[in-house]
Amino acid sequence: MAKKLRLIVDMDGVLADVYEQFIQFEFRESGLLMKKSEVHGTDEILAFPNGNIHVHERGFFRTIPVISGATESLEKLNKAYEVFIVSSAMEFPNCLEEKYYWLKEHFPFLSWKQIVLCGSKEVVQGNIMIDDHFKNLDSFTGRTLLFDQPHNQNSNDHSHERVCNWDEIIQLLL
Amino acid sequence: MAKKLRLIVDMDGVLADVYEQFIQFEFRESGLLMKKSEVHGTDEILAFPNGNIHVHERGFFRTIPVISGATESLEKLNKAYEVFIVSSAMEFPNCLEEKYYWLKEHFPFLSWKQIVLCGSKEVVQGNIMIDDHFKNLDSFTGRTLLFDQPHNQNSNDHSHERVCNWDEIIQLLL
Repeated sequence: MAKKLRLIVDMDGVLADVYEQFIQFEFRESGLLMKKSEVHGTDEILAFPNGNIHVHERGFFRTIPVISGATESLEKLNKAYEVFIVSSAMEFPNCLEEKYYWLKEHFPFLSWKQIVLCGSKEVVQGNIMIDDHFKNLDSFTGRTLLFDQPHNQNSNDHSHERVCNWDEIIQLLL
Repeated sequence: MAKKLRLIVDMDGVLADVYEQFIQFEFRESGLLMKKSEVHGTDEILAFPNGNIHVHERGFFRTIPVISGATESLEKLNKAYEVFIVSSAMEFPNCLEEKYYWLKEHFPFLSWKQIVLCGSKEVVQGNIMIDDHFKNLDSFTGRTLLFDQPHNQNSNDHSHERVCNWDEIIQLLL
């Protein structure tokens, strides 16, 4: 059997709905109810008045909602590809253990061997990368899928294949 | 200026003196004072009666002594190489945050961007890897330095350059 292609999958903005979490935390903190449509083109942390406080709070990453379709789709892809979950996590050390248990809860078919929590993603290698940040995709040498999110929607950079949801990813990769 | 070579450095058994920590935890637990010379050729966790309990304890990884010469040597190498610390940590999620703060304490010149906590190291790429485990070095495509530790001393496998301390690493790499 041929060796499976290695698929590198991001967490925040691809598996985890960080915008929804920022909206909920902001509303709880300040009473301000923001909409995803208001924050186009701005980095997701900076788009929310208290974003930079909330990412350092215990529980922020542990309770993020899962992006629609992510669990079922990744379970299928996990059979066809050598999947690694690669998340930029080191900037917020409070999230390290939370990310591990979040994956264990929502993606129980993944093994701990498939998880990478890092600073820079330049150090990982694979055949395909799904990520919502240009900085991660730009340095990757394989095929690159840009997961559509408000912060990347104003870009004219078309160097990566844009995907808007997990159905589109399944269409492309399976 | 030419791009720096990427140097992948392991934590446990290369920067962190896990044997010393196992010895101390075992002595505190059971009164049994073991010596490094007693545990040649055995996996470091299995070599100690309560090893598998201690690696899951809070504080085990946070308080490991630094291997002699590691801090000064890595500070020098960090100027000449693109250094990434890559540690198999995901099997023991209690250690994730501890490892981050341990590095911050003992290797303050490293940035969070240089830290990778993973399951399998197969996903990382670089030019040189320093590690004390064959399983990590065997799948690496660059130059491989095996850091001498009791668990790897009985091997007849000479496919990696064996180094016995940080002075030898500096001799080879600087």
